[in-house]
Amino acid sequence: MESRSEQELAALKQELVRMAGLAEQAIGQAICALLARDLELAEEVLRGDAAINRLEVVIDERCLRMLALYQPEASDLRFIAMALKINNDLERIGDQAVNLAERTLELLKEPRLKPLIDIPHMAEMVQLMLKQSVEAFVQRDTGLARSICQRDDVIDALDDQIVRELLTYMMQDPQTITRAVNLILVSRHLERVADHATNIAEDVIYLVEGKHVKHHLDAITIGDSH
Amino acid sequence: MESRSEQELAALKQELVRMAGLAEQAIGQAICALLARDLELAEEVLRGDAAINRLEVVIDERCLRMLALYQPEASDLRFIAMALKINNDLERIGDQAVNLAERTLELLKEPRLKPLIDIPHMAEMVQLMLKQSVEAFVQRDTGLARSICQRDDVIDALDDQIVRELLTYMMQDPQTITRAVNLILVSRHLERVADHATNIAEDVIYLVEGKHVKHHLDAITIGDSH
Repeated sequence: MESRSEQELAALKQELVRMAGLAEQAIGQAICALLARDLELAEEVLRGDAAINRLEVVIDERCLRMLALYQPEASDLRFIAMALKINNDLERIGDQAVNLAERTLELLKEPRLKPLIDIPHMAEMVQLMLKQSVEAFVQRDTGLARSICQRDDVIDALDDQIVRELLTYMMQDPQTITRAVNLILVSRHLERVADHATNIAEDVIYLVEGKHVKHHLDAITIGDSH
Repeated sequence: MESRSEQELAALKQELVRMAGLAEQAIGQAICALLARDLELAEEVLRGDAAINRLEVVIDERCLRMLALYQPEASDLRFIAMALKINNDLERIGDQAVNLAERTLELLKEPRLKPLIDIPHMAEMVQLMLKQSVEAFVQRDTGLARSICQRDDVIDALDDQIVRELLTYMMQDPQTITRAVNLILVSRHLERVADHATNIAEDVIYLVEGKHVKHHLDAITIGDSH
């Protein structure tokens, strides 16, 4: 029979997975809204953010209660502390979904600039990174976490490529400028989501292997901190 | 004579203030580099990020040690948990300084687009919000924290104004497009710093007054989550 603190820890994991699910869903909906030019779906993302913000508070409160009521052993303690940080990142990912939905609402005011190819590709990669970063956390899978950190560079390269292509559109036809700038910001918001997923993955490695790895990762990812 | 845990708590506050100081300095240097078109200073910001990342790990480790070794009372516990979250935001502010420095290096490849007026004004406001958010945390000053949350809307309005003006530049002269896009990203990075400062301020209110206020603030700041 589980102890009370084991039950709390299991509940915390469940809530974090739910929080991650909400963040993933918000990003997924924001991308769908962008690609399908779906105004209602974009507005649904804006409305949905309140639930993510509320769950962030619930999870913070549970972490505080666990720290206060039980004297968790070192590894659980580290887990709870990382949960507080990861919870923060997940809430910020929800904010990025809001930003993506806001860009989409702007883009819907004008006809489609071009068929989107790189942005959907980037969005798929980013959503996978986000999904796997939470899997890595729940399963303490540092191998998966490392593969996420490595992909951050690919996302940065994709972002640069998208920006360069959109700059050429703007230069060739000033009428495309507003839409191109909004698409550049979309790319930037996706890149931020990948950055949060990488942050979560770094925290997982930190959680499992201790500080030096995170320190090391920080050292080699300085250039990627977009 | 102070207890060991009181000494640790004082040391944690000192480290957070130092972390905040490094983040403030990085943002300040990045702004100076941008305005003075100072390549060396921009590169110094890039090099300086490693120190911020290292201090983040030191502070996390201290928080974990304090939670493990002492059974902090409820209010200290909340403080330590918030310290973990705020530490995260400060590290992210350092990343924004890196992004600002990278934009500056891009902007230095071409002559100055225009004398900057709104961006320095925005930068000053953002730096003050950052400085005061940490003051509010250390002094548990919810009044100051609330004033920071209120300013977030002003920053968003400034960002929109800057983007609109730069769009007109691009439309009038395609030769300005690359520089204008980089300045739009500068404005966005500053807006992110203000967002982190607001997050810190919300955490301060949460720390002092409990969850409902943060919940409430989240609810009314959904639209500002750029």
